[in-house]
Amino acid sequence: MSKISPSIDSVAGFHVAGVHAGLKKAGALDFSLVVSDVDCVATGVFTRNKVKAAPVLLDMERLAANPQSIRAVATNTVSANACTGSVGLENARATSDMVAAALDIEAEQVLVMSTGVIGTHLPMDKIARGVELSSANLGSDWRAAAAAIMTTDTRSKLGSVRVETGSGGYTLAGMVKGAGMIAPNMATMLSVIVTDAALSASVAKQALRSATQESFNRIVVDGDTSTNDTVLLLANGASGVSATTDQELAAFQDALKALCRYLAQEVVRDGEGVTKFVTLDVINADSEASAERIGQTIGASVLTKSAFYGSDANWGRIVAAAGRAGAPFDPDSASLRVAAGESPPDDQPGLEIFSGGMPTDYQEAAAAAIMAEPSITFTLDCGLGAGCATIWTCDISHDYISINGDYRS
Amino acid sequence: MSKISPSIDSVAGFHVAGVHAGLKKAGALDFSLVVSDVDCVATGVFTRNKVKAAPVLLDMERLAANPQSIRAVATNTVSANACTGSVGLENARATSDMVAAALDIEAEQVLVMSTGVIGTHLPMDKIARGVELSSANLGSDWRAAAAAIMTTDTRSKLGSVRVETGSGGYTLAGMVKGAGMIAPNMATMLSVIVTDAALSASVAKQALRSATQESFNRIVVDGDTSTNDTVLLLANGASGVSATTDQELAAFQDALKALCRYLAQEVVRDGEGVTKFVTLDVINADSEASAERIGQTIGASVLTKSAFYGSDANWGRIVAAAGRAGAPFDPDSASLRVAAGESPPDDQPGLEIFSGGMPTDYQEAAAAAIMAEPSITFTLDCGLGAGCATIWTCDISHDYISINGDYRS
Repeated sequence: MSKISPSIDSVAGFHVAGVHAGLKKAGALDFSLVVSDVDCVATGVFTRNKVKAAPVLLDMERLAANPQSIRAVATNTVSANACTGSVGLENARATSDMVAAALDIEAEQVLVMSTGVIGTHLPMDKIARGVELSSANLGSDWRAAAAAIMTTDTRSKLGSVRVETGSGGYTLAGMVKGAGMIAPNMATMLSVIVTDAALSASVAKQALRSATQESFNRIVVDGDTSTNDTVLLLANGASGVSATTDQELAAFQDALKALCRYLAQEVVRDGEGVTKFVTLDVINADSEASAERIGQTIGASVLTKSAFYGSDANWGRIVAAAGRAGAPFDPDSASLRVAAGESPPDDQPGLEIFSGGMPTDYQEAAAAAIMAEPSITFTLDCGLGAGCATIWTCDISHDYISINGDYRS
Repeated sequence: MSKISPSIDSVAGFHVAGVHAGLKKAGALDFSLVVSDVDCVATGVFTRNKVKAAPVLLDMERLAANPQSIRAVATNTVSANACTGSVGLENARATSDMVAAALDIEAEQVLVMSTGVIGTHLPMDKIARGVELSSANLGSDWRAAAAAIMTTDTRSKLGSVRVETGSGGYTLAGMVKGAGMIAPNMATMLSVIVTDAALSASVAKQALRSATQESFNRIVVDGDTSTNDTVLLLANGASGVSATTDQELAAFQDALKALCRYLAQEVVRDGEGVTKFVTLDVINADSEASAERIGQTIGASVLTKSAFYGSDANWGRIVAAAGRAGAPFDPDSASLRVAAGESPPDDQPGLEIFSGGMPTDYQEAAAAAIMAEPSITFTLDCGLGAGCATIWTCDISHDYISINGDYRS
């Protein structure tokens, strides 16, 4: 697996900025811009919610018409520009017009993203200020750019990976935001991933789709899915290295998947009120789809998440959630282990707490010691087939309720 | 609609007891027995979870073999007798053997229910004590019987309704427990409903199935579904009044549905940590199934429930939940109103806060005043067809997390 760095030095031909446009209070960064010197092959994966925000609709339209000459991505916080009708779409277009004017490119080359409260119009004077400031301050401060897309996130989330090939190296780098409303099939989650590798449009599309499926679509914070979820990939080819042969494509795909997983896990780690990071390895289900469904049902179970919070090795709730997932499941053929850490070594698979339809005779004290760790892995062996999927999730705490009880106020 | 009384005087031919068998601490009632003098037509609706508790498996077997001569229902708390393997099934059978011996009936005439922690074996010495005490103290104290099936419930939940016909009257009465883990398709919810009307087995089965669908299956506390959910209906005919003609059958069905709805709503009202009772009326969806699915998705959305808790009229989260329900939904044709109370009169439909894909220009202060009420009704008009469904749900509070964070300890 590719080695991910938790920071971004620079990616050839890309320039970024994160500025204070006045959307948030007290000087906090709230508007972000990513720009490429040259045209990018670009693709996106978007929310499956039937209620789609204006920027999602605009980006889907632009990427369908124009997947080979994208130049910029502008992101605002505070307003999601969702449920804003025709005015919302006009405002999304107007944002891209301003970016295009500032960068001397075409509006059709600009993608936009928004996150924040649903149903409020973009304050266009502040958006104009954000465009002006960010376009005048482009550089390599990716941490500022990542901070400028945060909402209830407690920290900026970014990462990069370097890929070396026979004909030279290239970089993949990305930033992400998202803290609550994270569910299977994306989340209130925005991510921009860039690379200086050269890709064809079809390779970019297929690679992002595949990587998203095994990363952003396999994290669960609270089971909700937002109107704005977007993951964008821009490839500008500035490294002069292309991914064309099977081997090069596989290397690119591996690196992209590793980066997406890292960013997705960062979202879970920074989930609203999260105190525990939980890895759910569902193995030997009758199919991969069943394994994923079982893992996602467990990860979305409020009752199970409450037990995680209480450091309670409550295998009963986990098995009960598996039983209602709507996938083939037989408790008599299943077993469940719990281990400390994120990737327990194969020779230390953890404590078996359930087997053959019943709890084992494990010691509660041993289980409690594992559950007290900040990072826990459950391995649910369904004993039915060869389907496997890993879901990353977290607990639900008092703080989650506090954060979401009065988010708008 | 039939008039429900929140208590039970007596039902001809039925005797009950709620006793302290030593399962709970400090003398709390923990074992319940319902007995009929004569054979009952009986039917049940059970959890759809693939992980079914031993008492569920035993009752399903007995009702399939023997739907016309049930005499007793015994319920224990503290242990759910789920995930307990062959020993669990033996213990369920042994419980029914003891009840049969104490009442001088056959074991096949006894149904059993269990609720509590998954994966612990029934303490058979205490169960024996419960059978002994309850069979020796049968009477008409339904409140004690209802209290003896409680787990994290804060109060006993029971109700009755009287039906008068041309040939005399009969009573329907029921008790229910359930506080958390309440979801579409039942819950950790146990309910026993009895009537002194005379019913055929096929009428009883059909009537309970239909009533459950529009009551217990339309409440959402936390989206989880338990291994033990059971609703039983016993009809002993002791009133001498039978439901046979179409009119009599309709009257019985109406009364049963009204009683089930009342009991189901009582479960929501007493949900773990609940501070608000929320009615979700989904109207004009493309089908009833779509309306139900949309309502259940909204009701299970943790993000939406957090907003209820914070008295935030966050229509955005409601519309976003509708959009991801997997049913046809178009925000542009939808509208949403909020009103105080459970059944706002038709001429006071409440405050419209969303319409045509966008928020209306409602005043936040007016919405906040409604949201501050302990009981709120949202009406989501999908504008697509004629499908309607009402879901009853609640908020999620800090207390829910506290209750479920350390339930086992």
